[in-house]
Amino acid sequence: MSLLVVGSMAFDSIKSPFGEVEKVVGGSATYFSIAASYFAPVRLVSVVGRDFPRRTIDKLSSRGIDLRGLKIADGETFHWKGYYEYDLNTAHTVRTDLNVFRDFVPDLPAEWRDTPYVFLGNIDPRLQLDILAQVRNPRIVALDTMNFWIEKSPQLLREVVRNVDVLVINEAEVRQLTGEFNLVRASRMLMDMGPKRVVIKRGEYGVLHLSDGEIFAAPAYPLETIFDPTGAGDSFAGGFMGYLASRGTRELAERDYRLATMYGSAIASFTVEAFSTERLEALSRDDIAMRVSSFRSLTEFRV
Amino acid sequence: MSLLVVGSMAFDSIKSPFGEVEKVVGGSATYFSIAASYFAPVRLVSVVGRDFPRRTIDKLSSRGIDLRGLKIADGETFHWKGYYEYDLNTAHTVRTDLNVFRDFVPDLPAEWRDTPYVFLGNIDPRLQLDILAQVRNPRIVALDTMNFWIEKSPQLLREVVRNVDVLVINEAEVRQLTGEFNLVRASRMLMDMGPKRVVIKRGEYGVLHLSDGEIFAAPAYPLETIFDPTGAGDSFAGGFMGYLASRGTRELAERDYRLATMYGSAIASFTVEAFSTERLEALSRDDIAMRVSSFRSLTEFRV
Repeated sequence: MSLLVVGSMAFDSIKSPFGEVEKVVGGSATYFSIAASYFAPVRLVSVVGRDFPRRTIDKLSSRGIDLRGLKIADGETFHWKGYYEYDLNTAHTVRTDLNVFRDFVPDLPAEWRDTPYVFLGNIDPRLQLDILAQVRNPRIVALDTMNFWIEKSPQLLREVVRNVDVLVINEAEVRQLTGEFNLVRASRMLMDMGPKRVVIKRGEYGVLHLSDGEIFAAPAYPLETIFDPTGAGDSFAGGFMGYLASRGTRELAERDYRLATMYGSAIASFTVEAFSTERLEALSRDDIAMRVSSFRSLTEFRV
Repeated sequence: MSLLVVGSMAFDSIKSPFGEVEKVVGGSATYFSIAASYFAPVRLVSVVGRDFPRRTIDKLSSRGIDLRGLKIADGETFHWKGYYEYDLNTAHTVRTDLNVFRDFVPDLPAEWRDTPYVFLGNIDPRLQLDILAQVRNPRIVALDTMNFWIEKSPQLLREVVRNVDVLVINEAEVRQLTGEFNLVRASRMLMDMGPKRVVIKRGEYGVLHLSDGEIFAAPAYPLETIFDPTGAGDSFAGGFMGYLASRGTRELAERDYRLATMYGSAIASFTVEAFSTERLEALSRDDIAMRVSSFRSLTEFRV
């Protein structure tokens, strides 16, 4: 089934202990859509400036990602500049230039309104609400956000949270959003607001996936070389939602959500092996299946 | 088979966001031996002052813990004072009074020299070497240490590391000991020094267990109330080594080490539910088995 994503397409300038890159292609919708395209047909809603490389757009298109919702606006593409120290779990923002995102109003193609799976990537909650108002009876809506919006637009963000099925956010954001340090209690607070599931991204520590009565813990893949964690969370979400969308029309069960978590984790583990989308876009179905199977060896024990 | 532990017995004064206690019973050998006593006969080597409660000694003894290696010395018991903030993964030391530990020379009862399983708890590497010099052909020797000794006695500590089979240390200590941030690479550096396995304790994120060619990742149990993480690492080690010692004389395989990791994790998850050894000492075999089985539900996924 089809999967709609709204989020950023961006240039990232990143410094990490392993190197430095200037204005490489990034953004939540970019990572998400490439990751999800291994599993399901993706519809992308975003905006870029005239400076965004045509080559990237063609590449996304050639993956079957439907770009009718991508606006090419006068002005410059969104730009994030940041760095990581040895603790790759923490991104330090140096500068955020919203550029063409400042005046972006997403306009959903009429034939996309019935898309069954929707991912609201990490952008202004105002835009996330815009999309929510335009879709009709989606099966699953998932949401990501970040500290910037939790601080800047807490009311709007709460409005979005109330109207989604799954939160896919990181550990620090769960705590900031709820004011509760304990993740089990914090997740219950979030589920009381509306969502049925909270998927907590913990970087190199993996994922904690909570729903009513069930908790699933997935480790991150212990890699020997992590070049750049940028995009790991969005790739995770892309693999996660992509897998769910690939399950067709039948009712989704805990088992599906767990496997979706593992597919997301597998995809994310490739993303961090290189800067930008370099590794992510070069995967085979076999690479992904083998990584999921490595995750099983990584976690399996028998009494 | 029997299991020997050398480590501290102590008074702990602890402040956490959930309460404050003054001079409660603690220490690495205390937590370790209670945890291990659920699985195997334990022999304890340590020293306390005359102020240490007779009641606790009787309690350990009644659990079948052999205390012939416990010295009661003139002077005061070792005392640790510290606090935790909301991040329970980090213990902040306010004061360490070595007291009777300052002049302690461990003297192994002659009939203990052939103990097959040995745990060198977190104490002065000089004492750990003393014990190593007194045991004969142990099957498995495991070692714990902490930042204090890594900084104070790096040479002696390296000497100990070279002579043990399993390191059971926490994430920050692995990094400090090797100067390498990546845990996979750091573990390989440690295994190059001698140990065949590195078991990395990551607090609320669980355990990463590395050996040549195998990695096993176990989550921590996601608890809703964590009162006091003190002793979690030592309880983990006690359950881990206790389980291995309970396997009898047959060759230990990866499967045994993985299950030992889960038993250790189960025991540790109880310890943190209360201050001191309160919860740890009140477990049934059923409690432990059920927690291990909860860990399976927590991590299981099917492709």
